[in-house]
Amino acid sequence: MPKISLKGQNMPESPIRKLVPYADIAKKKGNHVYHLNIGQPDIKTPEVALQAVKDADITVLEYSHSAGFESYRKKLATYYQKHQLDVNVEDIIITTGGSEALMFALGSTLDPGDEVIIPEPFYANYNGFSIANGVNIVPVMSTLEEGFALPKIADFEKQITSKTKAILICNPGNPTGYLYSEEEMNQLADLVIKHDLFLIADEVYREFAYDGYKHISVMSMPKLAEYAIMVDSVSKRYSMCGARIGCVVSKNKAFMTAAMKFAQARLSPPTFAQIASEAALDTPQSYFDEVIEEYKERRDVFIAALREIEGLEVSMPNGSFYCVAKFPVKNADDFAKWLLESYDFNGETVMIAPAAGFYSTPGVGLNEARMAYVLKKEDLIRSAQILKEALKVYKTVEK
Amino acid sequence: MPKISLKGQNMPESPIRKLVPYADIAKKKGNHVYHLNIGQPDIKTPEVALQAVKDADITVLEYSHSAGFESYRKKLATYYQKHQLDVNVEDIIITTGGSEALMFALGSTLDPGDEVIIPEPFYANYNGFSIANGVNIVPVMSTLEEGFALPKIADFEKQITSKTKAILICNPGNPTGYLYSEEEMNQLADLVIKHDLFLIADEVYREFAYDGYKHISVMSMPKLAEYAIMVDSVSKRYSMCGARIGCVVSKNKAFMTAAMKFAQARLSPPTFAQIASEAALDTPQSYFDEVIEEYKERRDVFIAALREIEGLEVSMPNGSFYCVAKFPVKNADDFAKWLLESYDFNGETVMIAPAAGFYSTPGVGLNEARMAYVLKKEDLIRSAQILKEALKVYKTVEK
Ligand SMILES: Cc1ncc(COP(=O)(O)O)c(C=O)c1O
Ligand SMILES: Cc1ncc(COP(=O)(O)O)c(C=O)c1O
Repeated sequence: MPKISLKGQNMPESPIRKLVPYADIAKKKGNHVYHLNIGQPDIKTPEVALQAVKDADITVLEYSHSAGFESYRKKLATYYQKHQLDVNVEDIIITTGGSEALMFALGSTLDPGDEVIIPEPFYANYNGFSIANGVNIVPVMSTLEEGFALPKIADFEKQITSKTKAILICNPGNPTGYLYSEEEMNQLADLVIKHDLFLIADEVYREFAYDGYKHISVMSMPKLAEYAIMVDSVSKRYSMCGARIGCVVSKNKAFMTAAMKFAQARLSPPTFAQIASEAALDTPQSYFDEVIEEYKERRDVFIAALREIEGLEVSMPNGSFYCVAKFPVKNADDFAKWLLESYDFNGETVMIAPAAGFYSTPGVGLNEARMAYVLKKEDLIRSAQILKEALKVYKTVEK
Repeated sequence: MPKISLKGQNMPESPIRKLVPYADIAKKKGNHVYHLNIGQPDIKTPEVALQAVKDADITVLEYSHSAGFESYRKKLATYYQKHQLDVNVEDIIITTGGSEALMFALGSTLDPGDEVIIPEPFYANYNGFSIANGVNIVPVMSTLEEGFALPKIADFEKQITSKTKAILICNPGNPTGYLYSEEEMNQLADLVIKHDLFLIADEVYREFAYDGYKHISVMSMPKLAEYAIMVDSVSKRYSMCGARIGCVVSKNKAFMTAAMKFAQARLSPPTFAQIASEAALDTPQSYFDEVIEEYKERRDVFIAALREIEGLEVSMPNGSFYCVAKFPVKNADDFAKWLLESYDFNGETVMIAPAAGFYSTPGVGLNEARMAYVLKKEDLIRSAQILKEALKVYKTVEK
């Protein structure tokens, strides 16, 4: 029998999905499961985007340009410019989700065996994309105690070798919810310039910044022109995860030439989804104002409710819609399984994402879990209550 | 300034697209260009597929299952079974085009530095997918003289090393149009079984078989159960290239587990396109009968017209909608550019795809070009006429 590749063997299982069989057990028992584990917003997709697809007059569903519709790229450049990002139409390649943008970014900057430095905990699929590209992640630790702020620059410098080609950040962070400050962004900028590295910034949660904090994009920092690669997506911005549209953006010409060849090899991004995404740019500002206000309120009630739980620690996130909490348990993975398999509070339970899968360093984050506040406020309050009650019982059964 | 990866530098430019700037020159001069260079069918997408998207009742455009809608996979399995392919729902992962299926197939079977053997000439983007995966293509030559039939098995065996992990075939072939016989498929099967290799079969043109020849799928050969990986796509079957839906199919569990992890990392295939593709399975047989008859007629008139051209050699393809022709010129690349830049026949010219980009061996196929018969019969006859007239002039100007 032929053997699969080492890469195929080493691809990690998604920490978000590996508990799905346990959730199935809970559901089979008739228990309701509150899904705090995934970043699938419940917010409605803008009507203007969905309607554009219905109205599209297509007779032959052709390949589009490999970089995406020119009309979409133009409109998207205008959108970025309105947000003070220095992005022109030629700086944009439309991709199949932010996911593909990450693949193109890593493939165009790193060769097999090369290293990318990433502050941990990080979006778990960076592991998969790195293994798929045959490159190695070198983590630099950020901690709950410091609210997952940028690790010290010295910690980054300690890890830089001749194999280091890029630093990858997620801003605001999944799973941390941390939004980097202007000072932190400047420190990172100086670092990549000093060491001639690319700075890949995953900004798919860019709009989700709270309390008046301003998101600082790598594309708004002139000194990063040759260094910055931005990854973006319509998935969260317009609650359009199923569209599968994102983009990779850079002013570095050599990078764009390489990324374009990756784009050409896979022919084109999906057409219906591009139609929806182009139309979504007409979404009125009021939609975002409402969505951000809704998430801010969700965050406030959820974090407050979590902080009522004895022994639980959680920092206040300024962006995205996730938080990482430290639970008063030995192992969050066991706890998460137990919640689904063996527990219910009046027929209800919750699903959380154990955080170990978001760390690259083995043995770290074992008692942490990520939770997404993508549910209605009542449900979030209810979920926190269930966790509180569950922990009382778990204390008595934990091995 | 940071440097891009070697991979990024080595990614080939698409041989289909690199002449686009020359086509732009022709168009600027006001000349009409017949596009024989690309495999973008002009056939109408089935109404049932387009209508399903219009009718879809979506409020939140969510991620789908990473393997694709279960309802779609079930219906697709039934479709394959109807065509005598041994495919069950758990053997299918829906992908973003056949392109992504190829990436998953290579990534799950080869590690960086490993080798995949491919009969050349081959679909040019196999180069891009291989470089993206850090793996090496080892070509085995097929020739126009033999109609691009399967090279001798001894030629394959000569190339097998400890690094060889898979053989990749395209059946029917792009660019060759060659359809492998049952005997050839059996030879390949015995070869991969003997050497414990995967047999990856790109069958995206499966329906396009003419003159009563039967397409032999790797999924119809029981002895290949643990060896076969099929790549498929809706792009050509339903003239739905812009949907970006394909699938990777295998009964090898270890392979499917690995491929599924690649699928999870990128979250899900596009939702609108899955709706269209699922509905497309209801396309009446009459659609295919008409399409295949149309392509067969196109092939017949086009090949006949090409064979009227002095010094041009072309074999009769039994499948897909491409052919490779040997032109009475020194360099088909120069000729193709000249056709666009400097020639017109009453204000019209043609665009062909120089075949060198479809070979891996340097210096081979220099006087060959691929042409797709995806235009109306009149246009194909006209195109052949233009080529005939052009060659008379080119003889006098060729350097
Ligand atoms: C940090 C981050 N980056 C990228 C992605 C990929 O999103 P998509 O491919 O849907 O654009 C996600 C999705 O959850 C994410 O959280
Ligand atoms: C032989 C072959 N394989 C795969 C593909 C990829 O097609 P898609 O990604 O549109 O399914 C093509 C497209 O032209 C092709 O010709």
